[in-house]
Amino acid sequence: MEYDIIYSRNDQAGRKFAGRIEGKRPLFALVLGNTETAKIPGVSAAGRYPEFTDFTPAADAELLYYGKCKSIEGVPVTPEGIPTPALITMAAMEMTGAPMLIVNGGLNVNPKAPFVELGGESGGDIRKGDAVKNAENVYENARIFGRNLAKTASYLVVGESTPGGTTTALAALLAMGISGKGMVSSSMAENPRTLKEEICDQALKSSHLEFGGCKDNPLKAFSKVGDPMMPAFTGLVQGAASQVPVLLAGGTQMAPIVAALCKLDAKVLSNIAVGTTRWIVEDKNSNLNGILSRVTDVPVLAAKVSFASSVHEGLRVYEQGLVKEGAGAGGMAVSAILNSKGKINSRNLLNKVEEIYSRILGK
Amino acid sequence: MEYDIIYSRNDQAGRKFAGRIEGKRPLFALVLGNTETAKIPGVSAAGRYPEFTDFTPAADAELLYYGKCKSIEGVPVTPEGIPTPALITMAAMEMTGAPMLIVNGGLNVNPKAPFVELGGESGGDIRKGDAVKNAENVYENARIFGRNLAKTASYLVVGESTPGGTTTALAALLAMGISGKGMVSSSMAENPRTLKEEICDQALKSSHLEFGGCKDNPLKAFSKVGDPMMPAFTGLVQGAASQVPVLLAGGTQMAPIVAALCKLDAKVLSNIAVGTTRWIVEDKNSNLNGILSRVTDVPVLAAKVSFASSVHEGLRVYEQGLVKEGAGAGGMAVSAILNSKGKINSRNLLNKVEEIYSRILGK
Repeated sequence: MEYDIIYSRNDQAGRKFAGRIEGKRPLFALVLGNTETAKIPGVSAAGRYPEFTDFTPAADAELLYYGKCKSIEGVPVTPEGIPTPALITMAAMEMTGAPMLIVNGGLNVNPKAPFVELGGESGGDIRKGDAVKNAENVYENARIFGRNLAKTASYLVVGESTPGGTTTALAALLAMGISGKGMVSSSMAENPRTLKEEICDQALKSSHLEFGGCKDNPLKAFSKVGDPMMPAFTGLVQGAASQVPVLLAGGTQMAPIVAALCKLDAKVLSNIAVGTTRWIVEDKNSNLNGILSRVTDVPVLAAKVSFASSVHEGLRVYEQGLVKEGAGAGGMAVSAILNSKGKINSRNLLNKVEEIYSRILGK
Repeated sequence: MEYDIIYSRNDQAGRKFAGRIEGKRPLFALVLGNTETAKIPGVSAAGRYPEFTDFTPAADAELLYYGKCKSIEGVPVTPEGIPTPALITMAAMEMTGAPMLIVNGGLNVNPKAPFVELGGESGGDIRKGDAVKNAENVYENARIFGRNLAKTASYLVVGESTPGGTTTALAALLAMGISGKGMVSSSMAENPRTLKEEICDQALKSSHLEFGGCKDNPLKAFSKVGDPMMPAFTGLVQGAASQVPVLLAGGTQMAPIVAALCKLDAKVLSNIAVGTTRWIVEDKNSNLNGILSRVTDVPVLAAKVSFASSVHEGLRVYEQGLVKEGAGAGGMAVSAILNSKGKINSRNLLNKVEEIYSRILGK
């Protein structure tokens, strides 16, 4: 199983995981969350204007459901006009016919599409403390839902769309005693590290937490300084991975999820892997494997996507380290490659992405 | 395939349908709805007090998810204290391991459990007209969701929990030009026929509709004089049945759904059947087959459930024609019997229902 996959971490377990899901069709679940943290100027690229980040998860969900957005015109773009990585997820879904569920972790703007409600609320600015209400309850709902969902599929791919999510990921990691400083990713070309770290330091301070203050209580870390995607995502993965393999589709935002699972239900770790993009594992401004090495030996599989030869400038710039990951793009690309036993590869995946992008642009 | 199933209508197509789903495990979807119509004194038995009907769908959903209710104490009961038919659904689910999804058609009280949101709102008193808001949109969302859901299962069983639903069913039938007077079921021992018919006459009048006024527009019939379960249920079935078989789990409330499908997408009719209980097809105070004969030749499969020998009085009285059906009970019983190729039968299904009921009563 070489295919277009990089076994980026824990190669042996990664290949074993790939063998278990090869040729099979997953159920894709996309967990959405909003946090006011995304609106702090300079934090997120997921939306042209800070307030616009409220619409990004809903727009991603609509794009995946309908092939076009309903809550906004066009598709979600970064301030530089780079289109959402949900295009990759769409391509993978079209090529494999995988079913999908949208899961509401907590939103300011609900998608104009069917979604699963878990009773969550949108998240606050972590600098003010108590960022996520109801985390315990959402986590429990998600866990039961995930367990049930596992009966409908041979395995799950779970992705997320949460603008500002790498900043809240860093804060949650710090609260759990995992130093992720200098290592979390960014959707922007220039990773605003110092800003993120200042926000996180202030977040911990407001919540009267020291580094590692929630070492044994990840749900408290999520409640205090995380975002509403986290408890929903963690519960969903935990419930499903008690039954079937689950590919966590994302970049450094997956680190606090994996860390939480270690504390909440370490048994499920043998059933999970992280699926991401080449852009994440080759990124010089972040270090997914480095963070995970402080957590556990979970394998990382990265899809060897390349947009270098794209006809669209908006896609070519992915090669300069913009956007990189989101909306389950990397994990669904890995899943499509394995589902097709390598027939889907970097080249025809790009072709499909370009076809979809052209269709949306109306060209 | 004799098993404990009555091929109550269109025997040949019914057996063919059964053959297609035999040995397979379904996905069960339960569509919930509230309508103010249920609070008209004398209309519904689904709740000890009229206002209590708001809680019945949520409580049914919680019972199926957690094995106990969260929104109320105990289990939903009729004014006479007869427990919800969701006990049968639970038994069938436990015996087959079928996965489940709760779908919100439009509620006053949301379940304290994960559910699928389609953007619906709870329904008004049909005597005042314009009973269901947003029906077109909910129907569209449900249709897309159902199509997607069909990818996760070999077939679907779709049930409903909608107090007051037989009255709104009658009104919707009348609006579509199908005379169901004297033929819709009731959860009470004495079917309050005259009351229901007066309500429906007034409903049509308030909506400026004559009998058959929405002959070619079922969504308008639902909007004007139906309940919020209807557009959600119809869309879900239509979307799913375009791909896989769908068993419509319910009694006379299924008639307006089947009638709507005839108009909206007659192609899917070859992929559907109605699954109900013996109590419905043997009921002398209603006539499911009679109504359906005015619609189309859809087959009806009834589970030969019998509670005559139960140790619980609350269950024995089902034999006197109380409750009879609801929360997908009959359809899920049919599904369990076929899934097990007859190993699950009337007798061991009752044993499981009694075991669950005793567990809930804490005995």
